[in-house]
Amino acid sequence: PSGFQPAWREDIPAGNSYRSIFTYDPKKFKHPSPAWYELFKAEFAMTDDEFSQPQSGGDEPVSVDQPCALSKEQISFFVTTSGAENVSTEAYDRVAFSHGKSIDENLSLRRASVGRLPDLVVHPRHKDEVARIVAYCNEQRIPIATFGAGSGVVGGNATPQGGIALVLKTHMNKVLAVSDLNQTAVVQPGIVGPAYEQALNDAPTRFGSAHAYTCGHFPQSFEISSVGGWIMASGSGQASTYYGDACDLLVSAEFVTPAGTLHTLDIPGTAVGPRVNEMIKGSEGAFGILVEVTLKIFRHMPENRQRFAFMYKTWDEAVAASREIVQGEFGMPAVFRISDPEETEIALKLKGLNDGLPDAYMRTRGFDPGSRCLCVGTAEGEKGYARHVRRQSLRIARRHGAITLTGYATRQWESGRYSDIHMRDDLVDYGIIIDTLETGVTWENLERVRQGVRDYAKQRPRTLCLTHASHFYPQGTNLYFIFILRPESEEEFLRFRSGAVDRMVSCGGSLSHHHGVGRIFAPWMETHLGSEQLDVLRALKRHFDPNNIMNPGGTLGLDDPRGVARDDRPDRS
Amino acid sequence: PSGFQPAWREDIPAGNSYRSIFTYDPKKFKHPSPAWYELFKAEFAMTDDEFSQPQSGGDEPVSVDQPCALSKEQISFFVTTSGAENVSTEAYDRVAFSHGKSIDENLSLRRASVGRLPDLVVHPRHKDEVARIVAYCNEQRIPIATFGAGSGVVGGNATPQGGIALVLKTHMNKVLAVSDLNQTAVVQPGIVGPAYEQALNDAPTRFGSAHAYTCGHFPQSFEISSVGGWIMASGSGQASTYYGDACDLLVSAEFVTPAGTLHTLDIPGTAVGPRVNEMIKGSEGAFGILVEVTLKIFRHMPENRQRFAFMYKTWDEAVAASREIVQGEFGMPAVFRISDPEETEIALKLKGLNDGLPDAYMRTRGFDPGSRCLCVGTAEGEKGYARHVRRQSLRIARRHGAITLTGYATRQWESGRYSDIHMRDDLVDYGIIIDTLETGVTWENLERVRQGVRDYAKQRPRTLCLTHASHFYPQGTNLYFIFILRPESEEEFLRFRSGAVDRMVSCGGSLSHHHGVGRIFAPWMETHLGSEQLDVLRALKRHFDPNNIMNPGGTLGLDDPRGVARDDRPDRS
Repeated sequence: PSGFQPAWREDIPAGNSYRSIFTYDPKKFKHPSPAWYELFKAEFAMTDDEFSQPQSGGDEPVSVDQPCALSKEQISFFVTTSGAENVSTEAYDRVAFSHGKSIDENLSLRRASVGRLPDLVVHPRHKDEVARIVAYCNEQRIPIATFGAGSGVVGGNATPQGGIALVLKTHMNKVLAVSDLNQTAVVQPGIVGPAYEQALNDAPTRFGSAHAYTCGHFPQSFEISSVGGWIMASGSGQASTYYGDACDLLVSAEFVTPAGTLHTLDIPGTAVGPRVNEMIKGSEGAFGILVEVTLKIFRHMPENRQRFAFMYKTWDEAVAASREIVQGEFGMPAVFRISDPEETEIALKLKGLNDGLPDAYMRTRGFDPGSRCLCVGTAEGEKGYARHVRRQSLRIARRHGAITLTGYATRQWESGRYSDIHMRDDLVDYGIIIDTLETGVTWENLERVRQGVRDYAKQRPRTLCLTHASHFYPQGTNLYFIFILRPESEEEFLRFRSGAVDRMVSCGGSLSHHHGVGRIFAPWMETHLGSEQLDVLRALKRHFDPNNIMNPGGTLGLDDPRGVARDDRPDRS
Repeated sequence: PSGFQPAWREDIPAGNSYRSIFTYDPKKFKHPSPAWYELFKAEFAMTDDEFSQPQSGGDEPVSVDQPCALSKEQISFFVTTSGAENVSTEAYDRVAFSHGKSIDENLSLRRASVGRLPDLVVHPRHKDEVARIVAYCNEQRIPIATFGAGSGVVGGNATPQGGIALVLKTHMNKVLAVSDLNQTAVVQPGIVGPAYEQALNDAPTRFGSAHAYTCGHFPQSFEISSVGGWIMASGSGQASTYYGDACDLLVSAEFVTPAGTLHTLDIPGTAVGPRVNEMIKGSEGAFGILVEVTLKIFRHMPENRQRFAFMYKTWDEAVAASREIVQGEFGMPAVFRISDPEETEIALKLKGLNDGLPDAYMRTRGFDPGSRCLCVGTAEGEKGYARHVRRQSLRIARRHGAITLTGYATRQWESGRYSDIHMRDDLVDYGIIIDTLETGVTWENLERVRQGVRDYAKQRPRTLCLTHASHFYPQGTNLYFIFILRPESEEEFLRFRSGAVDRMVSCGGSLSHHHGVGRIFAPWMETHLGSEQLDVLRALKRHFDPNNIMNPGGTLGLDDPRGVARDDRPDRS
C-alpha cells in the first residue's frame, strides 16, 4: 500500500443535519482498517483517487415543509399530558424519531428525502401517560408509532400515516426493581443495553441484591437498542444460544393497547390457555405499547467465561460439528458462531493472518483458503459447567478434524462486536453498501438456504457475500448474510436485496431470525407464513387495535401487504 | 394390624359398565399397601368393618336414553367420510368418549349420571378426514369435541351441546418420521406416551436413525395420555425441569380449524411477528384440532441417569436450596421434587421408614417429623453433564443442612410414578376422595400460596393435604397439592375444592400449572387472567371458530364463564 490515506470523514455532523440522524452515533467513528481498505479497492476495482472525496452525505440541515396536521386542541392534550418540554413539532425531531437504522433510511436521508412525518413527537414520562395517550389517540384516530431507541433495520419507525411518534428512551428508561428470589428485573422499555446491563451488574449496590446479575442479551445493536425493542421485534443476542432469545427472557408485561391495558402474570409456568405474553412478543408496535416488563436475569460471573476458537477444513464439517455440539445434551455454548469460507478468508485477511506462518501452517495441514471455516465461541455460567461445555465442544470439533486456535480469535471478534457497525457510513460515503439478511433454518435446510442465497448474490459480479451461522438450537440455527457491493444505484441495490429475500424465503428460510419484519420485509409475510397464519395476526390486530392507530401502514403486513408505500421501492407485483 | 384384608375390588368391570369407563385402566389394579390402609383408618376414624363392603361402583350397564340428534344425512356424511366401522351411535361409546378422568366425572359415572352426550362418535383415519369433518361441521353447525386419549382431569371432554366426539387415539397414533439432523419427530396426535417413547427408543431399527431418542415428556398420565393432549392442554412431565414443558417441545403443527388449516413452520427461531404456534398450545380444542406435530426429541442415554435424594431439616431450607440449584447456571436436574413435611412423613410412613433405625438416626441429627422434607431427583443428558448437575446439587443441598439418602428414595418414587393413579378407585369405593390441584408460583410467592391453600384445607378436620414442588424454573416452581378426605357428600367435596381453588388463585398462584382449565376450572379464568387477557383469547376463538363449534360450552371460559353447566356444581355466584 502507498502512503495514501482515504478521506474517511471524522467531522461530527452538524446537530441539525440529516447526517446526525442516520449515523449510528454521530460522535463515534470506526474506520475501515488498511486491510479492509485494500479489500474494497480490489473487490470493487476502485482507485485511491476514488477514496479522496466522499459523496454527498446528508449534511444539509433538516428542512421539511410538512405542517403538523393535528388540531390545536389535540396538541394541547399532549402538552397537558406530558408537559410542553416533552412535545415537539420541530421538523428535526419529527425526522429523527421516525427513522431507524436500515440502509434504506440511511440512503433516503442522505438525499434529504423523507416520507410522511409524524405530526408530533411526544416523550412520555410515565406508563400512565402512555395509557392516557393511547386512549385519546384511539378516540381521536391519531396514529401512534412507538420509538424505543431507534436501532431497528426493518423500517418499523416510519409513520406513513402521520400521527405521533412516542419516544420511550427519553424518560421511560429505568430499572425499577431487581428480585433476588425470582431472579427477575422489572424494567421500563426505553432503557438501552449498557444502562440496563450496568444496573444489573451493580445490583448489589443499587438494589441491595445478594448477587450481581447480567441481562444475557447482547445483540450487535446492544449499545443503541432498547429493552422494549428487543422484545417487540423478537431480537436475539450474541450469547442467545445459552441465554435464549429476547422473547425467552420475558416473564410478564404491562401492555397498553386501544383495547385496554393488559397485565400478564409473572408466573413462570402455567396451563391456562394460550399465553397472552406470546401475542405481545414480536408485535412491533402494531398491537400496543410495552410500558413495563419483568425479565429473567442471570448471575453475572464473567470470571467463568471460557473462550474457544476452531478452524475446520470445510463448511460441512463446521456445520456437522456445531450441530453435534448443540445436540450433545451437555449444556450450550453462549457465543457460538461459524463463518463460511468467504467470511473466514476475509476475517483472516483483515487480521493479516491470510499469509505468513499461521497460514502456511494451516495450509500444510490441509486447511485451505476458500474451504476452511472459522468458529468462535464462549461458554458461560457456573465455572465447572462452562469448562465442561468448552471441553466437550473441543472434543467434538477435533473429531470433525478441527484445529483449535486458542481464544485469541474470540477476543478479536469480541473487540469489534458492537463497534463494527460504525464503519457503515465510511463505506456509504464512497458508494459501497453493506447490508444484512438473517434467517432461521432447520439443520436439514441450512445448506439449501445458504447455497441458494449465495448463488443468487454471486450471480452479481463484485459482490461480497459473507455468511455465518450463529444463535444455535438443537433443531437448527440462524444464517446471517452480509452483502457488500457497490451498486449502480440505490434502485439496483434494492432490486438486488429484494431478489435475495425472494431466494431466502423460497428456499425455506424464515423471513427473519431476529431483525423483525417492519415494513421493509412485510411484502413477504403472506408468502412466508401463508394467509391462514397471517389472518390470525390480523385477527389479533383487529382485537387490540380496531381503529388501526398502532403503527399503521404496513407493519408486519397487517394492514398493507406492500409494507410502507415508498415511491422508490422496487415493484414486486 | 389384625389379619383383616380390606375388600379391595379386583374384578374386571363388565365391558358395558360405567365402571369400565371411569377407571384409569379396567385391567390394572394397585391396592393401597397395608401402611396406606392403616393411615386411612387412623386419619378418617374408620374400622375394618367399614372396609369390608365397597360402595356402589358404577357396575350397571350403560343405558342412556338420548336419541342421536343428527339427521340421517348428517350421519351418512360421517359414515361416508370415515367408514361405518369408525362411526358409532351406541350409548356406551358416547359416554366413554365424552368423559375424562376427573374425580367429578368418576363420581357422576358411579351414580350412572351423565350430561348431554355427543350424538355420534367418530374415529377419523387421517388428517384429511379431520379437515373434511371440521369443514362440514362448521357448515352444519355441529359441535366437535376432540378426544385424544381421555386422560384429562378438567372436564375438557364433555359435550354439553352434543355434536360429535372425534377420537384421535384409534387411528391417528403413528410416529411418521424421525429426523436425525433436526432432532425432531413428526407425530400424529393420538399416540399415547409408551408407544411414542418406544418408537423413539427404537428409532435406529424403526427409522434407520443414527441414535435412539427419548421424548423427554413423562407426566404421571404418561401411559394413558396422548401427545396431542400434552400440547393442547399445556402439560408438563416429571422430567420437565430439564426437558421443558410440553409446549416447549412443539416445533411446528398442522392445525385444522373452521377458519382453515394452518401449517406452522418448523424453523426453531424466527422474528416474523407473534408466533402462531403459541396460539395453538393450550387451546384445549376450542380453536381447532391438532392433526400432526413436529416435536423436539432428545438423545436417549438412560445409562447416564444420576439419581439423588436429600432430606432437609425444614421446608424453608428445601425451598432455598432448590432455588439455588435451579438458579445455579450449571444445568438443570431432570426429575426434581421436594415434599413438604406432611407429604414427607406420609412417604416415610408408607415405606416403614418413620420408625426404626433410619428414623432414629435422622431424629438424632435434628431431622424431625413434621419438619423434615424429602427431595428426590435425577440428572440426565450427557454423562459428564449429568454428573456435574448431581454433584453441584448435592453441594448446595449440603450447604443448606441436608443429608443425602442415596438414590433409593428416588428409585422408590420412580417405581410408583405411573401406577399410583390406579389406587384412586379403591379409595372412592370406600367413600374416600383423592384429588389434586397444581399451580405455578414465583419464588417470592411460593410460601404464600402453599400456606394459604394448606391453611384452608386444614380448617376441615380429617383432611390430608400433601404438597410437593416439582417442575422447577429459575423464576419459580409448580406447587402440587394432593387432598385426601372422606367428605360427607359429593357436594361437600366439590364445595371444599372450590374453596381451595379460590384460595390458590387469590394468593396469586396460577389457576393451573399443567392440568389445564377445561370446564371445571373455567369459572376462575376471568378472575385469574383479568378480562383484558381473556378477551384476547375470545378474539382468537372468534377468528378460528366463528360459529362456536369447537369444544363449545365453557372450555377455558371462552363462551360460558360458568364452565360446564352441571346441575350439581356448587353455586359460585
